[in-house]
Amino acid sequence: MMAAMTLENLLHEPELRPFLPLLYLAWADGSMGRDERRVIQARIDAQPWLKPRMRVALEAWLADAPPDAVTLAKLREAIVSSVGTLSSEARRSLVGIAESIAALDGDAREALDELERTLGLSSTELALARVSEPATTPAPSFDASRVQELLDGRFAGTRDRARAFLAAPQHRSLYGVDSATHRREVYAWLGELAKEGFGALAYPGVTCEAADGLGPFLATFETLGLGDLSLAVKFGVQFGLWGGSVYFLGTPEQQRAYLPRVASLEAPGCFAMSEVGHGSNVADLETLVRWVPKSGEVEGHFVLHTPSESARKDWAGNAALHARWATVFAQLEVGEQRHGVHAFVVPIRDAKGEALPGIRLGDVGHKLGLNGVDNGRIWFDHVTIPRDALLGRYASVSAEGVYSSPIESPSRRFFTMLGTLVGGRIAVATSGMSAAKLGLAIAIRYASARRQFGAASEPETLLLDYPSHQRRLLPHLAAAYAFHFALDDVRERFLAREPDDDTRELEAEVAGLKAGATWHVSAALQACREACGGQGYLSVNRLADARADTDVFTTFEGDNTVLMQLLAKGLLTGFKKQIAERGALRFVASHFLDSVALRNPITSRDTSEETFRASARQLALLELREAMLLQSVARRVQKRIAAKADPTIAANEVQEHLLALAGAHVDVLTLRAFRDAVARTNGEEREVLDRLRALHGLVLLEKHTAWFLENGVFEAGPARTIRRLVPELFAEIRPHAVTLTDAFGIPDNCLAAPIAFSDPARPRW
Amino acid sequence: MMAAMTLENLLHEPELRPFLPLLYLAWADGSMGRDERRVIQARIDAQPWLKPRMRVALEAWLADAPPDAVTLAKLREAIVSSVGTLSSEARRSLVGIAESIAALDGDAREALDELERTLGLSSTELALARVSEPATTPAPSFDASRVQELLDGRFAGTRDRARAFLAAPQHRSLYGVDSATHRREVYAWLGELAKEGFGALAYPGVTCEAADGLGPFLATFETLGLGDLSLAVKFGVQFGLWGGSVYFLGTPEQQRAYLPRVASLEAPGCFAMSEVGHGSNVADLETLVRWVPKSGEVEGHFVLHTPSESARKDWAGNAALHARWATVFAQLEVGEQRHGVHAFVVPIRDAKGEALPGIRLGDVGHKLGLNGVDNGRIWFDHVTIPRDALLGRYASVSAEGVYSSPIESPSRRFFTMLGTLVGGRIAVATSGMSAAKLGLAIAIRYASARRQFGAASEPETLLLDYPSHQRRLLPHLAAAYAFHFALDDVRERFLAREPDDDTRELEAEVAGLKAGATWHVSAALQACREACGGQGYLSVNRLADARADTDVFTTFEGDNTVLMQLLAKGLLTGFKKQIAERGALRFVASHFLDSVALRNPITSRDTSEETFRASARQLALLELREAMLLQSVARRVQKRIAAKADPTIAANEVQEHLLALAGAHVDVLTLRAFRDAVARTNGEEREVLDRLRALHGLVLLEKHTAWFLENGVFEAGPARTIRRLVPELFAEIRPHAVTLTDAFGIPDNCLAAPIAFSDPARPRW
Repeated sequence: MMAAMTLENLLHEPELRPFLPLLYLAWADGSMGRDERRVIQARIDAQPWLKPRMRVALEAWLADAPPDAVTLAKLREAIVSSVGTLSSEARRSLVGIAESIAALDGDAREALDELERTLGLSSTELALARVSEPATTPAPSFDASRVQELLDGRFAGTRDRARAFLAAPQHRSLYGVDSATHRREVYAWLGELAKEGFGALAYPGVTCEAADGLGPFLATFETLGLGDLSLAVKFGVQFGLWGGSVYFLGTPEQQRAYLPRVASLEAPGCFAMSEVGHGSNVADLETLVRWVPKSGEVEGHFVLHTPSESARKDWAGNAALHARWATVFAQLEVGEQRHGVHAFVVPIRDAKGEALPGIRLGDVGHKLGLNGVDNGRIWFDHVTIPRDALLGRYASVSAEGVYSSPIESPSRRFFTMLGTLVGGRIAVATSGMSAAKLGLAIAIRYASARRQFGAASEPETLLLDYPSHQRRLLPHLAAAYAFHFALDDVRERFLAREPDDDTRELEAEVAGLKAGATWHVSAALQACREACGGQGYLSVNRLADARADTDVFTTFEGDNTVLMQLLAKGLLTGFKKQIAERGALRFVASHFLDSVALRNPITSRDTSEETFRASARQLALLELREAMLLQSVARRVQKRIAAKADPTIAANEVQEHLLALAGAHVDVLTLRAFRDAVARTNGEEREVLDRLRALHGLVLLEKHTAWFLENGVFEAGPARTIRRLVPELFAEIRPHAVTLTDAFGIPDNCLAAPIAFSDPARPRW
Repeated sequence: MMAAMTLENLLHEPELRPFLPLLYLAWADGSMGRDERRVIQARIDAQPWLKPRMRVALEAWLADAPPDAVTLAKLREAIVSSVGTLSSEARRSLVGIAESIAALDGDAREALDELERTLGLSSTELALARVSEPATTPAPSFDASRVQELLDGRFAGTRDRARAFLAAPQHRSLYGVDSATHRREVYAWLGELAKEGFGALAYPGVTCEAADGLGPFLATFETLGLGDLSLAVKFGVQFGLWGGSVYFLGTPEQQRAYLPRVASLEAPGCFAMSEVGHGSNVADLETLVRWVPKSGEVEGHFVLHTPSESARKDWAGNAALHARWATVFAQLEVGEQRHGVHAFVVPIRDAKGEALPGIRLGDVGHKLGLNGVDNGRIWFDHVTIPRDALLGRYASVSAEGVYSSPIESPSRRFFTMLGTLVGGRIAVATSGMSAAKLGLAIAIRYASARRQFGAASEPETLLLDYPSHQRRLLPHLAAAYAFHFALDDVRERFLAREPDDDTRELEAEVAGLKAGATWHVSAALQACREACGGQGYLSVNRLADARADTDVFTTFEGDNTVLMQLLAKGLLTGFKKQIAERGALRFVASHFLDSVALRNPITSRDTSEETFRASARQLALLELREAMLLQSVARRVQKRIAAKADPTIAANEVQEHLLALAGAHVDVLTLRAFRDAVARTNGEEREVLDRLRALHGLVLLEKHTAWFLENGVFEAGPARTIRRLVPELFAEIRPHAVTLTDAFGIPDNCLAAPIAFSDPARPRW
């Protein structure tokens, strides 16, 4: 509070403004060194023109306790907005900054000149250099903003709006606060997002233009992953899951009745699918909805009930505190007949936030991360709900109690309903990827400024110049680009789909990419945290929370291992269909001709380094691996089915093969997407991106070397070439590493970590 | 509070005691189901003999909010102590439990019979079964307690005392509390540990018997890793680092002056080595101590100073709040001469906890985990310290200002001082391993009770029966045993060392095992957390905190990547020495004869499954890999040195090879130790442990298949054998998995996670 008040004082005293940069820079690393304090105090003492109240305001900033992050960010905003208009020459000088902030008379100017000289030799030098122009760093070989354009794609405008939201100091990611405070803040932010119209983007044709479909909504969700991840998840729960269930499963009347209030946050809600006994296996949910026919005056209606403790609704975000509505998934019984899982809109809290009669609500409690999200539990005790509570796009029950559905097969109906989750999986994967990009930007910036050990009588070596450090970070940088492009591709296909399209292949690929991407996020953030040593363990440096918050991304919106099997089964189905249509031989011939040719020693003699860097050879090898795994899995499954094994048991027996197959397909998707994205560029960035693509491909080939050797696809020679090429690529990419993270377009207010701003040659704050 | 008060009431009303198990079981999973509540309420209502105040006391337990963990644990203790004396027959019945707790008249007994019948069909059945005898589970094929004996080794008594401490309900691991509360509790626990004499174990010959050396202290530290890891780390900081620095670097007088008060916690202190600019590179610390000669009345003394912000002491545990002393590492200057890094004992806070003059103290702030430990920062401003503040075992300055040391070479002196860290590295590795064992016990118990999906019309499949789930957990179970035995071996060598022994080889191996073990801990806990899905993300289930707390174990007490290079350099030095002594050929011949023979196709024709399961072949292959990597790295380094490259730069260039070499040696150490441990067993457990050893070896061989194929050590055939054997071993070990975690001897109060107690057939609470 103290700091906040004195900030106001500072901003209102023009004569004090020259001190702003000084104070900001002294505090920006979270603590003020003794030398810094002494120099500033001496300067304050030496200013004859300072009035006593100004002196008090300034000295308050020299207290032991650092100003809080929000105050510091506000201070920075004030400085930056003044500096923005200066020439780069003027910016290089502290006096220049000061001049832009306040008109100075001669005396003050002289004092500041002296201040600058004094500081020039003190330990604040480094910090001061942060707002100066780079002196010796060579200009990057390509323009980060052009790569950012490529990454941002066609919804760049929405992304920029979301970035602007996150760039506001009051929206900075929280840490070290108690859950109650965190939840309250996140809910307030969610309200601001709704007010700025971000929620309305979720329902094209109802609450916003239909033209771009869900594109802008997904772009917003993705961008929010750069900030406090509790906000991203809360955003997804309210607008994606709760509102999305009404949007995708409801009738036009139901959409109009609920969605405007969902978008404005007047109707906060939750998505009650998972039960404590039934996480992944949603088809076996126990919660029951029975149809009660009209009787006398009482209209026909449903009764919703939790029949056992294992049927308790669990994990629903928003349910512990804020939701007043829930979309409840339950087994529908009409008369004697069970129709499988259906979705119902159910009010659960009154306006005061009290549970409605028959409803009991609980809190899942403290979690590893995402404590700004109020995950809850729900029990229903014979709750009466009206007939139109059933979301009616795929099923309805008439006033006379007759069930009907446009989809006859119950299992197809169920999977059609689940198919609506595909957008959520894209959203979770991309917003998790934003956290990985954030982590990579922080860790790579730190590694390009922090020195440790080194040759005698030289400055210590920069961390990023160590091969082992490059090995830790650069493969994840390449994978971040690769998954970005692959997710871009499936998102475009998702946006382009027509209502009656068969989207099963798309769903399978999204499932696989969600799993692959979120595993990548965990691994990348873990590597970043470790690469920053103890600094990475401090909450202020953001990596710890980003890692902990995204950890559950591998579990929610579908457990990754389950999703990978979904993809593998999709691949098997496609294989069977193609075999049936074209015959096995022709299938292999047409689909894998190039790849198979590679196994022929005559055509694969070209093992030059150039060949292994090229996308053609890399892709051919990975496609061959997928094809061979596919055939091998298919053979294993068929053998078991021929022996009349239960299909589920058969699938279990080949589970490891299924997972390998799905992984192989994800590899192909990412490398293919990366190749295609590079082909769309044409400036100086093309070469760097192509090297990054080459690194991604080589790392994948290196990872599967054992398989290639074992299956005779190549011999020891190529294996060695690949192993030699990987560090070569590290060295080629290393000079561009920071610029490649600049292209992520992460606002400084998200980057936030002090260690991300320790390079004097890379001014951003 | 409410629950705690009513607990007292319950314990003081004999007639209420029959309700205790009921209430405990209803709440034990963290929430009381509606059915449970209704049944209990009905039973309360139906007891004519209940007085109104008893009724109130009981009904208070039916509130919405669950009782806190400590209250619940106390309740459990009360029940368990009553149940303990019952026959197993009587224990199987709720009435039996009730009888043991209170004498019942006929009416009450009948009511309880009815209660039991009612509950028999309700959802509490599962919970109730927890205190009943197992009904259908087959007896394990070996006795877990015999394996526990093997694991506990010769300090089993100390371990049991530490376990008893952790088993007390009030010492249960904390989560979701604010840092201030967490720090306060941990400090109070530390005081209890000191009072029970655990701190005194750290200084054999000074504060405890010398006979067992540091064995009991290290066993305590290891055991504490099963509880709140903040306590383990705080214990290590106070008794290991702070007291240990005086013990290892001080003179007998200094030991006697400080250590009794360190052991009793009268003198809390910290270990101020790392500086913000110098984490791993300790030799380049900047903090300065200058000798000021006698002048007039003023005796000769030292002045301690922080010359720049990068010299700020950082990360010191205990420094932010509790430490009144610090061992400060600083560059010693006497006259014009620099003598390198030395250690000084410096008071930093007065009795009221205020910083002493010239000393500024800070807090590193919130962290990913271990927030019960107060890591801090220290700045010194020309602080005067007396001559005897210099810890004098390896160096002293006379009253006349003459520096002397029993070790002439400054670099050898420095490394001798650092050598005292080796005990700390064993402690960190083993206590981290305890957390991994805890996680494995929780995840494996859950996986052997939780069902999801499955064949049609069958009960759903247990998670642990899925091959992919076995793949997630069982290799880590095998590695937990392997690292346990390997760390046991180096600990015994550490305990057996004599003062003048050359311990560099031991130090190098400890460095490598610390790195390997703590990386294993991170990977194992991550796998456990993911294997438990959303449940694993909840703090109540312990995996989240265990994972977050141990994450920094890979960084502190030496960054793992740096430590692995230390090991690799040690191996290279040993190699050079042996070559010099015996000639290259003889060295290879004598050391790797068996291994090299394996490369000969004539002698390695035996590729049967039996051979690849046997420890002889597994070890020979891994030793061969290490030997070949060693020769290859040595050749690369020599080539660079011959070309007159700077040795540091040369080492950087082969850094990836060094890391591979160190990893290969750690593989060998773990497998060798596992083999030797199995050889020491002779009961039924031997076969199971040997299979677990075989799995560990096979997983290592599988991991390095690419290398073996590429280097022509074996062909595709053996590679396939290995890949086929791994899941075979999974299936063989799976039935014993839970018993293998029982052998870790983890108190229920540490296991604590509700998901660890979800198997009705495995009663422990």
